[in-house]
Amino acid sequence: MSNTDLQSDLKSLVPLFKPESIAIIGASSNPAKPSGQPLVALTQCGFKGHVYPVNPNYRTLLGLHCYPSLTDIPGPVDLCIIAVPARMTLTALEECAAKGVRGVIIFTSGFAEVGNEGAIIQQQMTALARKTGMRICGPNCMGIFSAQNALMANFAVTELPDKVLVPDYLGFISQSGGFGVAIYEMIKEKGYGFSHFVSTGNEANLEFSHYLGYMAADNKTRVIGGYLEGLKDGQKFLQAADMALANNKPVMLMKAGRYPASAKAAASHTGALVGSEKVYSAVFKQKGIIRIDNLEEFLNMLSIMHSGKIPCGKRIAILATSGGSGVMLADKCAHYGLDVVPLQEETRLALAALLPDFASTANPVDITSAIITQPGLLEQCAQIVIKDPGVDMMIVAYWTEFGNRSILNQMIRVEQSTNKPVFNLIWGPEKAAQEAMHYMNNNLIPAGREVDFIIKSMATLAEYHIFVQSRKETTMLGPEIPINAREKAAVLLNNLGPGTRLSEHTAKQVLRAYGIPTTREQLATTMEEALAAAETIGYPVVMKIESPDILHKTDAGGVLLNIRTPEEVTTGLHQLLNNARVYKADADIKGVLVQQMLPDNGIEMIVGISKDSTFGSTVLVGLGGIFVEALEDVALRVAPVSPLDAQEMLSELKGQRVLDGLRGRLPADKQALLDIIQRLSRLAVDFPQIAELDINPLIVFPKGEGACAADALIAME
Amino acid sequence: MSNTDLQSDLKSLVPLFKPESIAIIGASSNPAKPSGQPLVALTQCGFKGHVYPVNPNYRTLLGLHCYPSLTDIPGPVDLCIIAVPARMTLTALEECAAKGVRGVIIFTSGFAEVGNEGAIIQQQMTALARKTGMRICGPNCMGIFSAQNALMANFAVTELPDKVLVPDYLGFISQSGGFGVAIYEMIKEKGYGFSHFVSTGNEANLEFSHYLGYMAADNKTRVIGGYLEGLKDGQKFLQAADMALANNKPVMLMKAGRYPASAKAAASHTGALVGSEKVYSAVFKQKGIIRIDNLEEFLNMLSIMHSGKIPCGKRIAILATSGGSGVMLADKCAHYGLDVVPLQEETRLALAALLPDFASTANPVDITSAIITQPGLLEQCAQIVIKDPGVDMMIVAYWTEFGNRSILNQMIRVEQSTNKPVFNLIWGPEKAAQEAMHYMNNNLIPAGREVDFIIKSMATLAEYHIFVQSRKETTMLGPEIPINAREKAAVLLNNLGPGTRLSEHTAKQVLRAYGIPTTREQLATTMEEALAAAETIGYPVVMKIESPDILHKTDAGGVLLNIRTPEEVTTGLHQLLNNARVYKADADIKGVLVQQMLPDNGIEMIVGISKDSTFGSTVLVGLGGIFVEALEDVALRVAPVSPLDAQEMLSELKGQRVLDGLRGRLPADKQALLDIIQRLSRLAVDFPQIAELDINPLIVFPKGEGACAADALIAME
Repeated sequence: MSNTDLQSDLKSLVPLFKPESIAIIGASSNPAKPSGQPLVALTQCGFKGHVYPVNPNYRTLLGLHCYPSLTDIPGPVDLCIIAVPARMTLTALEECAAKGVRGVIIFTSGFAEVGNEGAIIQQQMTALARKTGMRICGPNCMGIFSAQNALMANFAVTELPDKVLVPDYLGFISQSGGFGVAIYEMIKEKGYGFSHFVSTGNEANLEFSHYLGYMAADNKTRVIGGYLEGLKDGQKFLQAADMALANNKPVMLMKAGRYPASAKAAASHTGALVGSEKVYSAVFKQKGIIRIDNLEEFLNMLSIMHSGKIPCGKRIAILATSGGSGVMLADKCAHYGLDVVPLQEETRLALAALLPDFASTANPVDITSAIITQPGLLEQCAQIVIKDPGVDMMIVAYWTEFGNRSILNQMIRVEQSTNKPVFNLIWGPEKAAQEAMHYMNNNLIPAGREVDFIIKSMATLAEYHIFVQSRKETTMLGPEIPINAREKAAVLLNNLGPGTRLSEHTAKQVLRAYGIPTTREQLATTMEEALAAAETIGYPVVMKIESPDILHKTDAGGVLLNIRTPEEVTTGLHQLLNNARVYKADADIKGVLVQQMLPDNGIEMIVGISKDSTFGSTVLVGLGGIFVEALEDVALRVAPVSPLDAQEMLSELKGQRVLDGLRGRLPADKQALLDIIQRLSRLAVDFPQIAELDINPLIVFPKGEGACAADALIAME
Repeated sequence: MSNTDLQSDLKSLVPLFKPESIAIIGASSNPAKPSGQPLVALTQCGFKGHVYPVNPNYRTLLGLHCYPSLTDIPGPVDLCIIAVPARMTLTALEECAAKGVRGVIIFTSGFAEVGNEGAIIQQQMTALARKTGMRICGPNCMGIFSAQNALMANFAVTELPDKVLVPDYLGFISQSGGFGVAIYEMIKEKGYGFSHFVSTGNEANLEFSHYLGYMAADNKTRVIGGYLEGLKDGQKFLQAADMALANNKPVMLMKAGRYPASAKAAASHTGALVGSEKVYSAVFKQKGIIRIDNLEEFLNMLSIMHSGKIPCGKRIAILATSGGSGVMLADKCAHYGLDVVPLQEETRLALAALLPDFASTANPVDITSAIITQPGLLEQCAQIVIKDPGVDMMIVAYWTEFGNRSILNQMIRVEQSTNKPVFNLIWGPEKAAQEAMHYMNNNLIPAGREVDFIIKSMATLAEYHIFVQSRKETTMLGPEIPINAREKAAVLLNNLGPGTRLSEHTAKQVLRAYGIPTTREQLATTMEEALAAAETIGYPVVMKIESPDILHKTDAGGVLLNIRTPEEVTTGLHQLLNNARVYKADADIKGVLVQQMLPDNGIEMIVGISKDSTFGSTVLVGLGGIFVEALEDVALRVAPVSPLDAQEMLSELKGQRVLDGLRGRLPADKQALLDIIQRLSRLAVDFPQIAELDINPLIVFPKGEGACAADALIAME
């Protein structure tokens, strides 16, 4: 599916976000009930379109004419909210279809999340939506809030926020209603305005990714946030993420279910399959999605970004009023990957002119308690430091006293005079600090008490910016794939039965079609062929048994290394056939693979393709050998893998230093390795039916000498 | 130095903490100045002893007779505070010595922290203290506060706290004055009482460890906290930590300077050398010291422990009022190493009887919004869950509304009815949540908003408890060291020049003396000896050049493996001598080492001894090979290493799974490895002059087959 697909899909979401007429099936006037809340809120908060309560038990509701059924409504209905018991829901949905409604929100629970019977009804909803093109949000959801048109089509956000300091800021999508509302409340309280808030429920029709795409395209949304347990269609998510990236909209997601315990909990919560944490984590890196670990960091990031600020690099300056807190902050900055850079000479001289002798003008700058006796000192120092061209952002830590605005006002002026992020770390007795943070918050100045959350959020934004820039600036070309690669491979890969495993020999032919170097080798079916092959390839050679019935050749005594003479080929062949017979008497022996013996100056790597049930084909790379098996040190990305992605995969490996040449070894040919990763990516895209492909080992030789697949295996879906 | 040393030392601290008379040299009555603050506070806060201001410029101060000099004071003086300019400080200290003062606190700055000149004066202070036995706190410190006797001998804590909910709780030691006071204020505000607060300053005489030992022995202190940049004497610290452990007092330290950037900052802050982060981190693990990563966690731990509660294991139950927040909490618990265990059948049935159908009785328990409609439901459920015998602790997450006490009171009753820790995670609008937390805090109930800090603090306490229990319960015996090991090794190790490096052959003799198996080997100086040695050892053998001038034998072509016949011995010997000549023409060749060739079914490890400048000899272990070099996967402990320490070292290795037998390999002989670690520990204790000892590789064979040092090296200090 191409981007255009999701984009054209998105038009169909308009009735859910910008309806001109809304019907509520099962409406009531009770503001404490899901059936009453939207009716009350829609009529009281300024929604401009038509609102039609539908309920056979009432003539009027809140002064509006109440219709016995949907068909009784005279005009067209864009959006319909269904708030009837589970057993009546499907009928109501069918009425919507009959009426030509294009968008439906189903509050009702009791479907896929409660068991099989409910799942079947939910499937019928899905089928009906697909047949009619009608779009469904839910079931088992809290609905949609959209600020622009006061669309209160939900039972979570029931009034417009009274304080919006930053309008048209955040769109939020939640796979948990209750938790989503809790997040909504905390963000709203800070004064950050929501463009839209969506509770997605069971996603019978519209999925998380649809809303993500809609908000990526929506010009009233600047930042997108979400709580995610699991995706139904990973490819759609990738498209939506690409749209957000193209439109310069940060996507910040809390993804639950990292560990078995929580994955199980998620499954019993919304029936969501949380998928592979490894793959999700890779996708987030690949698409520049900011992973939210906790709400405090989320709020911190929002507090930095609302004015368009973002750290342009990782260089941070620290200003503190005590030496110890400066040291502690430097620790935290280093911990989260920020650079506590030396300040420029000019900066230090300017600081020295202001500060007492026992202060420190190094980074961290220790202003000392002189801050108390010299009014305006903090502002002066902060202005000097933030102007240092070697600094991308600043954190300023100080003690506050209740109601004392002087220092706070100094810092407000500093923040407003620069386009670099400045974060205030406010120490002090709780009441005083709370009051100070409240003041700063109302002035939209980033301020907090939790060192870890503050510094991590700054580091995360810096990484995000670096990611975005790298995607804009880099125009690296991938390797040239042989023009007929696909055709050649198709001969070998198409028309195979499900679960087929290709022999090493065939698998390597596929690799060679895509320009991936493999050992020189020949399949020999007679002694003469074996001897001739060894001669052609050149001694020493490797000999391997070739049989679809023997997958683990080493275990079967099916591999002989370092065969140096024709005599050894002769005895070797007998030995291999013998071993095969012992291992599996009726094995179908295709012959013996005579293979080039690779020099031992290379590094063993593992590269391959693996199919993920959510995102499709992924490409992976790791260091070979037993230690890596112990450490699970593997990096992966979803195909297609860009040249930059491939580089980031390598730099993600814990053992990456091995490639740089440890203990006097020569650095490895990283370029050859990167090249192979991208060739595999193309292969994966061309043949999504490959379930697994392993090159193990891939031998990577010293720089300039290339790499070579020593063994390979392909398994089809 | 034995424990008794530190303990007898501690008596000398009594004048600093329990003086009956205090003189203040340079006293003033200005409560805004360090010279005035203690005088004001001592006279106003109820200190019972004598207070003597000393200042030639006043006749009286605050109604007290003011003495022109210390010698004019008629009675004895236990403690003297010096608050005079730097140039007058040494003279004042000499007067203290002359007067027979036993404890001195020097506020004055301008010594080692400002440069060489100051450092020289500070050394004179140290010398004077050593000569007279007088004890000094500081210089460049904020002094000592001790609650018990209202000892306000400082300029940080200038009044007694007005709210002490938990008296006689925490002793705190800080290597940063300003930051220490900030921490003090935050803790005080929660109502946790300090027994003592010490700002240690430059530690010219008394060190961090002295205060730690004092508080470990003090019966008014239950928990010890501190901010630490670097220790002068690591051994003293180990003793103090042992005392705290023996007295069941948790020690919770914030250790700064983990990274180069912060280490540099610490050096310019107090001139503290932060030491090796690796070694500090090992020492903390070895002594059960709780490392504080941030103040919020510290406060959380204090809020759990004050009533004597501590999680007895890692099994946590989660109660939440929304499915999503339960999933998120399960994620966090797993992340921090807690077990989100299944609840017992009985517990689940009891919950099911109370909860609606769509709630979840699994762990995390999702109580759902039924909490709103069923008053008392939360308390009932929480009581059921916390009684589950499979649960060690509980976290309960709920939404709060301003001023609504009902749920809070329910949770107070739950907390008070159990001796298992229960933490309240309070969601809600900030004002409401703050108010709720304040209420809980005043009732001494653990409550907070920051999920990460809460769960990490619970996990940390569980680990601490498990550590303490393991030390109490385990009576594992270490290996028996040969009775004459020390004497045998002394012959080889004593009377060596500084920096001497022992040859492989000699180093292995030292190892064998301590019962560490090495390859069988003989040093041959003639061809005949070489042939005879190979015969005795048994073919195949390894041959290595033996020369003090050739340290990197492999690089010099000085190692031949797999010598299978007498002929190969003959050619090998020539080859080795030839290679040595080429490598270094004038090398002093001691002969050729003929060595047993070890079977290849073992795992290569590295074990050794390394001397740390702060803590002395450490023992280390890691997996061998190039990957570990890339990953720096090494565990270490300070000698002596207990059997339990050794086990924990192994389980700390990232690659530890290699030892358990990966990919069909046999599990390795861990016991042999543990045994060798402890033998090395004994060797390190017996010969502290060993700067470095490397066994690289140590080959560890499959279980039951032992281990063997294949190569070894010893370097003396």
